[in-house]
Amino acid sequence: MRKIVLLLLAAMLGETALCFAQDPAGAATLAANASAPIDYVWVLICGFLVFFMQAGFAMVETGFCRAKNATNLMAKNTIDFVVASLVFMVFGFAFMMGTDFKGLIGISGWFLRGDNYDVGRYLLFFWQLVFAGTAATIVSGAVAERLKFKAYFLYSLAVTAIIYPIYGHWVWGGGWLSKLPFGAGHVDFAGSGVVHTIGGFVGLAGTIVLGPRFGKFGKDGKPKAIPGHSIVLATLGTFILWFGWFGFNPGSTFSAHQLRIAVIAVNTNLAAAAGAAVAILLVFAKTKKWDVGMMLNGCLAGLVAVTAPCAWIEAWAAVVIGAVAGLLVVLSIYFWENVGVDDPVGAVSVHGINGIWGLLSVGLFADGTYGLCTSEAPLVKGLFYGGGAGQLAAQAIGAAVCACWAFGLGFIVFKLMDKYFGIRVSPHEEIKGLDLQEHGTPAYPNFYTFNN
Amino acid sequence: MRKIVLLLLAAMLGETALCFAQDPAGAATLAANASAPIDYVWVLICGFLVFFMQAGFAMVETGFCRAKNATNLMAKNTIDFVVASLVFMVFGFAFMMGTDFKGLIGISGWFLRGDNYDVGRYLLFFWQLVFAGTAATIVSGAVAERLKFKAYFLYSLAVTAIIYPIYGHWVWGGGWLSKLPFGAGHVDFAGSGVVHTIGGFVGLAGTIVLGPRFGKFGKDGKPKAIPGHSIVLATLGTFILWFGWFGFNPGSTFSAHQLRIAVIAVNTNLAAAAGAAVAILLVFAKTKKWDVGMMLNGCLAGLVAVTAPCAWIEAWAAVVIGAVAGLLVVLSIYFWENVGVDDPVGAVSVHGINGIWGLLSVGLFADGTYGLCTSEAPLVKGLFYGGGAGQLAAQAIGAAVCACWAFGLGFIVFKLMDKYFGIRVSPHEEIKGLDLQEHGTPAYPNFYTFNN
Amino acid sequence: MRKIVLLLLAAMLGETALCFAQDPAGAATLAANASAPIDYVWVLICGFLVFFMQAGFAMVETGFCRAKNATNLMAKNTIDFVVASLVFMVFGFAFMMGTDFKGLIGISGWFLRGDNYDVGRYLLFFWQLVFAGTAATIVSGAVAERLKFKAYFLYSLAVTAIIYPIYGHWVWGGGWLSKLPFGAGHVDFAGSGVVHTIGGFVGLAGTIVLGPRFGKFGKDGKPKAIPGHSIVLATLGTFILWFGWFGFNPGSTFSAHQLRIAVIAVNTNLAAAAGAAVAILLVFAKTKKWDVGMMLNGCLAGLVAVTAPCAWIEAWAAVVIGAVAGLLVVLSIYFWENVGVDDPVGAVSVHGINGIWGLLSVGLFADGTYGLCTSEAPLVKGLFYGGGAGQLAAQAIGAAVCACWAFGLGFIVFKLMDKYFGIRVSPHEEIKGLDLQEHGTPAYPNFYTFNN
Repeated sequence: MRKIVLLLLAAMLGETALCFAQDPAGAATLAANASAPIDYVWVLICGFLVFFMQAGFAMVETGFCRAKNATNLMAKNTIDFVVASLVFMVFGFAFMMGTDFKGLIGISGWFLRGDNYDVGRYLLFFWQLVFAGTAATIVSGAVAERLKFKAYFLYSLAVTAIIYPIYGHWVWGGGWLSKLPFGAGHVDFAGSGVVHTIGGFVGLAGTIVLGPRFGKFGKDGKPKAIPGHSIVLATLGTFILWFGWFGFNPGSTFSAHQLRIAVIAVNTNLAAAAGAAVAILLVFAKTKKWDVGMMLNGCLAGLVAVTAPCAWIEAWAAVVIGAVAGLLVVLSIYFWENVGVDDPVGAVSVHGINGIWGLLSVGLFADGTYGLCTSEAPLVKGLFYGGGAGQLAAQAIGAAVCACWAFGLGFIVFKLMDKYFGIRVSPHEEIKGLDLQEHGTPAYPNFYTFNN
Repeated sequence: MRKIVLLLLAAMLGETALCFAQDPAGAATLAANASAPIDYVWVLICGFLVFFMQAGFAMVETGFCRAKNATNLMAKNTIDFVVASLVFMVFGFAFMMGTDFKGLIGISGWFLRGDNYDVGRYLLFFWQLVFAGTAATIVSGAVAERLKFKAYFLYSLAVTAIIYPIYGHWVWGGGWLSKLPFGAGHVDFAGSGVVHTIGGFVGLAGTIVLGPRFGKFGKDGKPKAIPGHSIVLATLGTFILWFGWFGFNPGSTFSAHQLRIAVIAVNTNLAAAAGAAVAILLVFAKTKKWDVGMMLNGCLAGLVAVTAPCAWIEAWAAVVIGAVAGLLVVLSIYFWENVGVDDPVGAVSVHGINGIWGLLSVGLFADGTYGLCTSEAPLVKGLFYGGGAGQLAAQAIGAAVCACWAFGLGFIVFKLMDKYFGIRVSPHEEIKGLDLQEHGTPAYPNFYTFNN
Repeated sequence: MRKIVLLLLAAMLGETALCFAQDPAGAATLAANASAPIDYVWVLICGFLVFFMQAGFAMVETGFCRAKNATNLMAKNTIDFVVASLVFMVFGFAFMMGTDFKGLIGISGWFLRGDNYDVGRYLLFFWQLVFAGTAATIVSGAVAERLKFKAYFLYSLAVTAIIYPIYGHWVWGGGWLSKLPFGAGHVDFAGSGVVHTIGGFVGLAGTIVLGPRFGKFGKDGKPKAIPGHSIVLATLGTFILWFGWFGFNPGSTFSAHQLRIAVIAVNTNLAAAAGAAVAILLVFAKTKKWDVGMMLNGCLAGLVAVTAPCAWIEAWAAVVIGAVAGLLVVLSIYFWENVGVDDPVGAVSVHGINGIWGLLSVGLFADGTYGLCTSEAPLVKGLFYGGGAGQLAAQAIGAAVCACWAFGLGFIVFKLMDKYFGIRVSPHEEIKGLDLQEHGTPAYPNFYTFNN
């Protein structure tokens, strides 16, 4: 009886389209909530856009790497989503969104069977899957040009079965981080932490276990630039990612009845622009060159940073958050290079570091006009709007947990694989390029290319 | 009076937004069905995604072919949709969706004039057009690198004016196949048969009439690999197709009030992933190389196969159907090569063979939880769910008719053209590449390329 | 009281979702208009598609230019949207959509602050911004391969802060052109004039101030072809633009309750097809080559031309308008070349000239079945449908004003910059390519390229 009342209430408020279990055809769900279709359409189309980010990552990463590894990067950027799709159906979704067990892990929903054969559950699965796939694909940039394909295959499995969904459960599945007794608990609107910090710090673990590419550091230890083979692909990829992010962030309302989606779209865009502007101007001030690669990374850094706060801030704050991200990404890329970490596409800086910045920025800029997507959720308010330090504390705790969890488990996974079969290709293969040995096909057999 | 009652009924059920004739501004349609906008938005946006598949096909096909024919492939992949748009407006739409004449053909709606100047009819036209364009563009891969542009121009006309719309009428326009007295009649949710088998088997006819490319078969008759000129383009194209397929399949409900769209999206994705996984693992087992091209074809094969059953199956069945497609596409590509058929991009195997598999799979895996998009339609139930062999029989009949119709008419069209003006470019031109002679412009004039 | 009645009325008619001020969370807007979500979803997703056109322009322009300037084109095509985003937030949006001052300019809404912190205002901002970005990016093609990056940076600022928003205010912000006492006033459904003529004529000013590229004209003054470096990128870009145009035109209803969106989508597509067909056939008749570049420009010309009339015409008229555009673009490209104007990608012909044709075509083909998006707006009727010459006059006045405003201010901006710091790169740099000197990074460092 109580359930029916709740359902009717939810339907009337138009807030949750996802209440019926075991409604595979959707007729009962529609009967209970006549305005469900608009929410389904919104979530699905935004999910399609998030899926398309896979193409964006593939283009950015291969653009920033050398032609001799382009086939390999295509293989990796495809297989991670392939693995994610299958593994998330079997395990991942259950760990993340299944019935909560003591705030630590979900424990139902394997294989999408039983009660999960339901339009609302499938919708939720689709949404969470495209996010899991994004987390997985971020890593490929950090470990590019030297990781064996087999290791990438297995690592994708580990991220989408374990690392991503369990942490995701803590924040989005009703787990312990979401219930921290500070501010509104740890909040992460669209996944600066859950997706990007996770991906970035697993990538950091990978690149540390692998070591730098041949030729990245001189005998004096100084980093050398290894230019990517196509600025055009890198730019195309960035535009695809920017486009996809309009699904990623606004779609995270999981309901079109939250008209706040308009504010989220604007904030997402402004942070991207501010990040790009600051990064290109900063490098220009130093080198007198208009550095396109850095502009693209600045743009992506702005997008990553605004992903957590996008729903809780005003436009001007999005500009500030993006601008700081543009600064951070430049400093971070210089920093990691100078401590001997070789991250070919800047994935650690773009996703890892700016993911953390995004989480913290919620604790500063959230303006208290909006909560979570359900009406009973508390409004989120940061330091600059009189919310005190509580929210900032919750954000800092979550960020620290996120980075440690991702780096720690990532490190163990890469180390274990390295122990058992060696995750790095042979020096000969690395110099010739991974395409020939691992895949048998160069990416561009009709063109004369340098083997630098 | 009866009409008005039906209209009101339909409006209340939110099932058909497409009932008024001669309502060019849409106000009457909206007044009769206040929830029509969500259906229009859903169908249009899905249609835009299907349109975008044109870019995907262009990239996949040119990626899998040589640089010297890239301009030609761009020309073909554009002109087919250009021709489709114009021809479908004049003839095709009327043949497919006009008033039914004895279950064989539609016979009204030329030029979208008269009663067709109506928001609902235009919406239906747009949807059917982007599908027609897809069927047309599939062929270009099979006949790549040797067909004259003029022949391609004319062939596109034949497919979109005759071959596609008439067969389409039989299945989707109320024609005889949809009324077969087995199971729920022959059903094809989003066009494994109507679009993909049609395209694939017309392509088979084309490649047989043309004969293989120079150098494809050695003197001993053994096939040789002719690597495509850009794995990156092929992968980008595959991602675009995968993205577009989320419009193709879920949009085929033609209504957002069918919340089953969530299930369809998930099934579509899982089949793609399973196809890719099986294909790459299979080839790896044989060659110890991670074959990216085959992985991409496996992915597309999974998508083609799940297109017919996507609305009637559970997630696990989508995985099985996709996995079988991944196996089939590998075997089929080897088979055609070994019988001397040269299909440069594997279009026959991906679209033709797996289109048939998709049709048959409905008769096996349809689980009886869902029918067609109107509530009075019967549920679709396959062999494994106690539906008996009726549905399977209907599917087999449809598949046989589809392959014969497409191959037969395609063969006649290509043979006729060949008789009148010769459809194959000269040996000299083929070796130099089609770009210079036919188009006057190499695709990549700033790069040093091999003329292999 | 009157306000409340109006709001309720608007909500009931489902026409305006954008009525509440200072509703940052959206709950009040939703309460006043339960069907607002579908309008928000429609406008946002169409806006995302329009954003994605940035990638399309980037690919088309770089495809039609040489490899040695590809990095530069990527930089320009990104930075214009970056600048547009920031500047439009600070100034542009206020000038365009702020409180009207004597029909000339808007004067409120700076920084999106105050009353503008509202879901409806943010939605409007997002929509207008992606249009402003499109106007800005059109210019980069006309001034390609010789304009300094710094000049491009500043010019983007001028267009998105001043030139575009003020003219936009005259047509779409309640300004004087929209109130011309002829026909329904000057109307421009989705911006043939506001976006494309503005962009095209600023580009014309830029290319005239710059002068032609080295090598474009022989000693005899005859134009020479300078082939672009990638037909594949140009085609991909055209497909992306075509795809994005399905957001651009149908989304300009700003409401999904206008079911006319289906007609607009069909018209948009048919004009593109007709333009492409005419352009390729025309050039074939003259040269016996199937010219892909011209086909792509014909396609874009058709899209530009149909942008103004798309909502007010029938399908056959869209075909005629597109066909004329295909003819016009070919003639126009020849014309400008022969008067010594060097427009590397044909931006002036595609956007400038066909923008004007699009505006005029409204005065000929508008069929009187539809008005503007609010029900009280007058129907638009052209000469061929008995509307007399009034609408045509209003269109001609608007077109003349548009071209003069854009060319005049564009000329001043480029001349001023040229006086102060010189907008053209050095001859040495132009010959070496802009990538090395301005950006320090060639676009394709792994490939052997010609420096032609």
